[in-house]
Order: sequence, then structure tokens, then C-alpha cells
Amino acid sequence: MPVVTIELFEGRTVDQKKKVAEGVTRVVSEHADCPESAVIVMFRDIPKHNWAMGGELASDK
Amino acid sequence: MPVVTIELFEGRTVDQKKKVAEGVTRVVSEHADCPESAVIVMFRDIPKHNWAMGGELASDK
Amino acid sequence: MPVVTIELFEGRTVDQKKKVAEGVTRVVSEHADCPESAVIVMFRDIPKHNWAMGGELASDK
Amino acid sequence: MPVVTIELFEGRTVDQKKKVAEGVTRVVSEHADCPESAVIVMFRDIPKHNWAMGGELASDK
Amino acid sequence: MPVVTIELFEGRTVDQKKKVAEGVTRVVSEHADCPESAVIVMFRDIPKHNWAMGGELASDK
Amino acid sequence: MPVVTIELFEGRTVDQKKKVAEGVTRVVSEHADCPESAVIVMFRDIPKHNWAMGGELASDK
Repeated sequence: MPVVTIELFEGRTVDQKKKVAEGVTRVVSEHADCPESAVIVMFRDIPKHNWAMGGELASDK
Repeated sequence: MPVVTIELFEGRTVDQKKKVAEGVTRVVSEHADCPESAVIVMFRDIPKHNWAMGGELASDK
Repeated sequence: MPVVTIELFEGRTVDQKKKVAEGVTRVVSEHADCPESAVIVMFRDIPKHNWAMGGELASDK
Repeated sequence: MPVVTIELFEGRTVDQKKKVAEGVTRVVSEHADCPESAVIVMFRDIPKHNWAMGGELASDK
Repeated sequence: MPVVTIELFEGRTVDQKKKVAEGVTRVVSEHADCPESAVIVMFRDIPKHNWAMGGELASDK
Repeated sequence: MPVVTIELFEGRTVDQKKKVAEGVTRVVSEHADCPESAVIVMFRDIPKHNWAMGGELASDK
């Protein structure tokens, strides 16, 4: 705790996720009263055909 | 906002998702005081062995 | 199954949710190969200070 | 209802999930006032590079 | 890890949740290759008007 | 997109959430190829009796 879930389009590299996990952990720890060791970050890769905004799939844009 | 997440068995086609996204966006916009452009719809495809009801995996039924 | 989760700003009435639940259930059933009786819809009411876009809380806009 | 979502590292077998689904359904039914038939269990398999604790991806440990 | 999220109707007591958390942790640890200390269980209390099955809110049943 | 969900113990102030939202948005935008304007951050406040680690509710510790 805290648990941070990040849903983003698939295609991000492991290295990008690593940097996001490091930075998000630092920010959350700094401003939300918890040690970095307690911060969990989970990624979910979303294919473009599984995401719509305004009723239109991202894969159709 | 709103964010709509739809978990369903894998196997639905992109065309089915497209129709679901369109229809759900219309319904939410009409009844929940928000423009269609603000509605996000996200699908998650669930394999049958990752879903149980009554303690039995759907893949075993 | 399917499970539909709808996160929206708090303040929607029960009657609005009722109409959204009915409409979303109809749309999902029609286009995703499942009976209406199997569709679960869950709402989560989000306070404006618990939601940010572009790094700014909705309560600050 | 209830809906139980279990996020775990990918690699668990279908047989392991079967046992988890059975056991979790029994426990929830027994202590939370609901019939076993109403308990839904959903698994999400998380790759190690999609999970971090303390800012470090599990795939880097 | 694993992270178990349990969505149930509001009204369960803390004592009920305690028993569910204990039992679910034991089951997951036993069958999914992880120590009990690593299992996280999170509850979300759902009001009956925030849940529908078959298009009908549970508060209307 | 991306959608970032942060589950933390209730009791954080709106000002703390504001700083977390700003920082997380900056980090995600910088490392995950997306404009800050597209990043959504959502908080969920978790009471201590709704969270367990190792089978023990945080409210019992």
C-alpha cells in the first residue's frame, strides 16, 4: 500500500515501465506519507482495439 | 470521465467491441449528464480458465 | 459475466443509474453474445477531488 | 456478487487456479453471508515486468 | 503480490472481513506458491443501488 | 489514456492528492510517450479495515 495501477497502450518497453515505476514510487512516497518500499505499481497493457473515447475505438482513429 | 470497464470472455471480435463501445457511450452520455466525447470505454478479454462462478472455472463447464 | 464497471462523478441519482444499468445491459447483451441476465453492472461514485486530468484535480477546475 | 479479483504473477497453472477458486469461494460464502453460487472469482495474470514494489520491477530482482 | 480485491454489498462487519481476509490469504498462499505475508486483500463495499444484474439495480429487487 | 488508479489509506488531504496527481502525471507523460493532458489519475480512499496484508486487517495492527 499504496497500490498504483497504470493502464496504458501496449507497446511501452520494459525500460519505459521501469522509469515510470521509479518516478511514480518516488512521487507517491514523497507526498502520501509512506515509505517507497510500500508502494506497489502494476501496469496493464491495453491493445488499441480495447479502448474507446467518445464511442470510437482507438484502433479506428 | 466516466470510465467504463467491460470484462468479457475473450473471443469477441473488434467489430462487436466497436458496437458495444458506441452503444454504451450513447447510453451513459444520455443518462449520466456528460458529453459522449468524455466517455472512456475499456475492454478486458478474460480467458475462460480465469473466471469462476460458484467455485468452478468456466473452462470446466 | 460480462462485468461492467462504471466510474463517474458522485451526484448521479439512483434513477439515472437505473437507466444507465438498463441501457448498458441491453447494449452489451445485444452485441456481445450473452443473455441480459448474465450482465453485471457496478457503479463507483468518484468525488471530484479524487479525479485529475492533465495533473489537475477536477475539484480545482 | 461478491466479485473477487485475484492478480498474481503469470505462470500459475489452471489446476492451481481451480483450487484457489474453490477455496476462495468457500471462504467468502462461509463468512460473508452469500451462497457459493453467487461468488465470482476472476484471475489476472501479471507478467513480472508489469509489477514493481519499492520502485523496482519484479523482473529486475 | 498477489493482490485480491473483494467487492461485496456494504453491511459486512469488520469481524466478517477479518475472517474472509484470513481464509482467503490461507487459500491463496497454499495453492498459488506464495507466502501468506505477501498476500494483500482489499475490500470494496458496494451499496445496493450501485449494483445491477440483468439490468436491474439490487436496491430495486 | 493512460489511466492511473491510486489506492491508498483514507486520510490523505486534498492538497496531498493534488501534489501526487501533478507529480504522477509529469512522470507518466515524460516516460510513457503521451501528453500530460491525456493522463487521468483517480484516487480511491481505503479504510484501514478494508485492507489486509498477511491475512491481518490493517485496522488490527
